[in-house]
Amino acid sequence: MSRLSEMGEKEAVRRIQNLIADRGASSNIGPGDDAAAVDLGVIYLVATTDIMAQSTHILPGMSYWQVGWSLAAINYSDVAAMGAKPIGLLVSMGLPRDFESNDLDEVFRGILDCCEFAGGELLGGDTKETKEITLAGSALGTVGKREILLRRGASPGDLLCVTGSVGLAAAGYHSLANRLSFKAAEKAILEPSPKVREGMLLSASGAVTSCMDVSDGLSSSVHTLSGMSRVSFSLDFDEIPVEDEVLEVAEALDLDPIELALYYGGDYQLLFTVRPKGLDRLRDALGNDFSVIGEAKAPGENVLVRGSEIIRLENRGYEHFR
Amino acid sequence: MSRLSEMGEKEAVRRIQNLIADRGASSNIGPGDDAAAVDLGVIYLVATTDIMAQSTHILPGMSYWQVGWSLAAINYSDVAAMGAKPIGLLVSMGLPRDFESNDLDEVFRGILDCCEFAGGELLGGDTKETKEITLAGSALGTVGKREILLRRGASPGDLLCVTGSVGLAAAGYHSLANRLSFKAAEKAILEPSPKVREGMLLSASGAVTSCMDVSDGLSSSVHTLSGMSRVSFSLDFDEIPVEDEVLEVAEALDLDPIELALYYGGDYQLLFTVRPKGLDRLRDALGNDFSVIGEAKAPGENVLVRGSEIIRLENRGYEHFR
Repeated sequence: MSRLSEMGEKEAVRRIQNLIADRGASSNIGPGDDAAAVDLGVIYLVATTDIMAQSTHILPGMSYWQVGWSLAAINYSDVAAMGAKPIGLLVSMGLPRDFESNDLDEVFRGILDCCEFAGGELLGGDTKETKEITLAGSALGTVGKREILLRRGASPGDLLCVTGSVGLAAAGYHSLANRLSFKAAEKAILEPSPKVREGMLLSASGAVTSCMDVSDGLSSSVHTLSGMSRVSFSLDFDEIPVEDEVLEVAEALDLDPIELALYYGGDYQLLFTVRPKGLDRLRDALGNDFSVIGEAKAPGENVLVRGSEIIRLENRGYEHFR
Repeated sequence: MSRLSEMGEKEAVRRIQNLIADRGASSNIGPGDDAAAVDLGVIYLVATTDIMAQSTHILPGMSYWQVGWSLAAINYSDVAAMGAKPIGLLVSMGLPRDFESNDLDEVFRGILDCCEFAGGELLGGDTKETKEITLAGSALGTVGKREILLRRGASPGDLLCVTGSVGLAAAGYHSLANRLSFKAAEKAILEPSPKVREGMLLSASGAVTSCMDVSDGLSSSVHTLSGMSRVSFSLDFDEIPVEDEVLEVAEALDLDPIELALYYGGDYQLLFTVRPKGLDRLRDALGNDFSVIGEAKAPGENVLVRGSEIIRLENRGYEHFR
């Protein structure tokens, strides 16, 4: 018998997917995507769940409002990655007996504020007693059958894009851990912003061929899109959007900014591919809120091009239990 | 500031409902019912979440298969109480690092077996590291807009009914705790059976005016239906269905069988009201799988009639944090 700590989260998920596959075919999409998509006839119902716990996910110094906001945000991010319009959120909480009721109010204010931001409602919940604070959310949304964005669908020649910038949450993590007070970076990790509006615009454009969020890190997500779409990606190093604070944190702590930008998680941006002909339409809809960072090629190795150098993109990022 | 242990689960839920109400009106139903119901135009999407944790919900001796089954069952029970047809389940798990992968497989086999029983699918999940085993499920279903069963809707004159029997799970709890090996009772608490088929038949009958599950205890549920429907109930003691094993466990341990039948939770039966004229139609659909145990009256006290005695029905049952 093996333990989760030896197996890691990805292998555990693979085992569970095999158990599900053994039960026979389904007309639904997922597991394996950011969210499941249930065929309701004219639309897909998109559904996803994420759990966070005090000992592993709640950063020291995080306010209870931020805990609630984050729970909602990480769930809505998966709905956004499918191009869906949020319906709302269910929240299950395990709380210790001595948890203060005012703190509980703050958690719910954070949840409700993020629901408002995302255009969803808090639909229901459950609270039970546990040893440590443990919060599980399930977000729901709907998307037209032809508008859904999946991890598969990219073809050679499609352009690889990302919303916003990468590495800021990682920089925020290190800023917090070292009390450096880089405010934008710390806000990125403490109050992640789900790209719901962007996801809906991507799906409405009709030009996007695949999409996922980069919560487990840019490089890890590029490898996932690559595997699901059966293409490889060539990334242009100079085009990867990185904010100045990431470079400043890296310099202050003698960290490699490439590590922060590529191999950390916590940025809830959307990584997607678009047909070259659709790029103008996307610029009209999204403005400059995204960057073209590479191109899909025939299956092969995923690489990072830096001047004349071609570097293999490593398939690593944040993984639980390991 | 007060703590959850002083406030109790019900007061915590009330606080949260007030926070939600402060955000303005919604076209959706719930919180406040067994599940939320989201208006999707032609149908309601029914959605609910329930969480269980090792220290407070996983009974000693419970197999991992039973843990998984129970998680799915308690969630599907809430879908059943709305008269909805299950779509499926999302599962978020917090697991300790040293959790065995074979045990994880057993948890998922239990979940998948209960999904099959309920006619739903396992739609997706998330696993993270926590100190104690913590499982959160969210079940989804659909129901026609006119067929939905709510906690409100009972009118004076309606008959109060319950599926199956009550008290068996409570008897099972005591049998396990005292190693008495009453098999049917122990199975009732270890492997609760969500009344999905029954809920769908109740809703299809068109004769049912209100419904909820009795997971928090019969008496507590009668009080809830009473409050939501603005009626009172008169229960006929002799008609409350109690299996012999409940009486046997009570006798063996010198417990009051009325306590087990009325004031404990864990029976995932459906409590519902039906128009007297619809009773025959319901018998045709459900056979003898339910009992008429009382009648709805004008608002007032909920009572239990035992021969010539009229006893006030106490509003207590299982409540978390207290």
